[in-house]
Amino acid sequence: MPGVFRDRLQECAQGVTVCLEAALDAYDDVPVTRAMRYACAGGKRLRAFLVMEAGRLFGVEDARSVWAAAAVEAVHAYSLVHDDLPCMDDDDLRRGRPTVHVKWDEATAVLAGDALQSLAFALLCRDEMGAGPALRLELVRSLARAAGAAGMVLGQAQDIAAETAPARLTLAQITALQANKTGALIGWSAEAGALLGGVDPTAMRLYSRALGLAFQIADDILDVEGDVAATGKRVGKDAAAGKATFVSLLGLEGARARAAALVEEAEAALAPYGERAQTLREAARFVISREG
Amino acid sequence: MPGVFRDRLQECAQGVTVCLEAALDAYDDVPVTRAMRYACAGGKRLRAFLVMEAGRLFGVEDARSVWAAAAVEAVHAYSLVHDDLPCMDDDDLRRGRPTVHVKWDEATAVLAGDALQSLAFALLCRDEMGAGPALRLELVRSLARAAGAAGMVLGQAQDIAAETAPARLTLAQITALQANKTGALIGWSAEAGALLGGVDPTAMRLYSRALGLAFQIADDILDVEGDVAATGKRVGKDAAAGKATFVSLLGLEGARARAAALVEEAEAALAPYGERAQTLREAARFVISREG
Repeated sequence: MPGVFRDRLQECAQGVTVCLEAALDAYDDVPVTRAMRYACAGGKRLRAFLVMEAGRLFGVEDARSVWAAAAVEAVHAYSLVHDDLPCMDDDDLRRGRPTVHVKWDEATAVLAGDALQSLAFALLCRDEMGAGPALRLELVRSLARAAGAAGMVLGQAQDIAAETAPARLTLAQITALQANKTGALIGWSAEAGALLGGVDPTAMRLYSRALGLAFQIADDILDVEGDVAATGKRVGKDAAAGKATFVSLLGLEGARARAAALVEEAEAALAPYGERAQTLREAARFVISREG
Repeated sequence: MPGVFRDRLQECAQGVTVCLEAALDAYDDVPVTRAMRYACAGGKRLRAFLVMEAGRLFGVEDARSVWAAAAVEAVHAYSLVHDDLPCMDDDDLRRGRPTVHVKWDEATAVLAGDALQSLAFALLCRDEMGAGPALRLELVRSLARAAGAAGMVLGQAQDIAAETAPARLTLAQITALQANKTGALIGWSAEAGALLGGVDPTAMRLYSRALGLAFQIADDILDVEGDVAATGKRVGKDAAAGKATFVSLLGLEGARARAAALVEEAEAALAPYGERAQTLREAARFVISREG
């Protein structure tokens, strides 16, 4: 990981962690809020980085963008808690630790996820964002769309339906599925930075959609090649479940080539911004080179 | 049920149903969105009525308030879907029909609930509300608070914790629990009407908080005295589970007296509005007289 990107990723992660902890500390200390804190800890914070670094590209100070970054990380954390449930992916390990329903119980996991989604929208209302109400409302509207039944939840549902479908998904279907499941939220992140900066978010959309898909292909490759220690979650699950993945459809080399082409696409979308977009470029390269 | 209140309740329910169906029709027709439609159908729509009738008291046209009414009904529907899950209350019957996880499966129920929450916040962003962005943002902020870990979810978690607690809850504890579990959302509803009308929501808060608690006490009475045909859900569950309820703590007559006192409290909060608040008054009386 290049040093500049690594440092910036860490800086964004720390800022978001401070915001999330402050917001979560305002709640009563009960199991469900402890589970929320647990679910919000750790992770790469790639979505937070995208909000804040895209924001910086358009002159938005971190102290403002960090709240939108915290919001998207809260949605991401909620989705992981629910996705890990026995009735969904049934995972017992996440970020190297027991998943929420293992550490507490399923009811607490359902509720913690639910409340994290509410929290995300509360964070977008914070006055500290230094954005007018119309802009914050636009962020609420677009995050609700990206997270809901036309975005992330649709992708999750498509993913679950694929498990029992008579035929394996085609490349077009799995690309559409992933564009919803992970692409919508990753796309929202970079777009939110542009919106906060008061600029048209089209370039950031192209950049982050390509990055998001590359990220997912890299995930499929890691599921085949990675190990538990590096990824912090179970590997080999998709192959064991007989699920179609980018690797099963394209082969390992084909998947790598597709991911590399998407990174080039992401970089091309950044061309107008020259050197100032270097850290976003490094982020795109990082997603296909990561080991966990 | 007095005719004026009954007609207005029905009118609000119809308006909200139209909004929710229009919003839901915009999604792909897949199991998770079918489950969302199913979960949003039916119900008394008391929360919608409170938004719209409180709104009318302060001069807000139905065409505006109906979107906030639809938003709170979407949150309510999501909470029922998740509350009915096997890991929560494990109910197989709701509004006289199989619950979502029975009709589809648990994963679809989790996801449909999740997407209904997102939809609620999307509805509050609708331009048709005819409210400036600052006001809509205030509604987002307050709904996120009412639904989240300082409101409804906290109440749900307290309710679940009570089941395994060594001692039965006290009256103060169960009152606090219900103020969160159902009171937060019912309270938000009437307050939202006031906020849309540009007036201080304090009176509406007092009114609806008292109404909400009376509603819950009536629910406990129905759990003892009601039947499945009238309530559309299983009865006698709380007693069978050995849970403390207002009836187990106060006795049937004591619970009735407490509910009646709360209705008087709710009516007192409406005193400044005279005859114009008559339908809201009837709503308060209705919640303790209903049979389902």
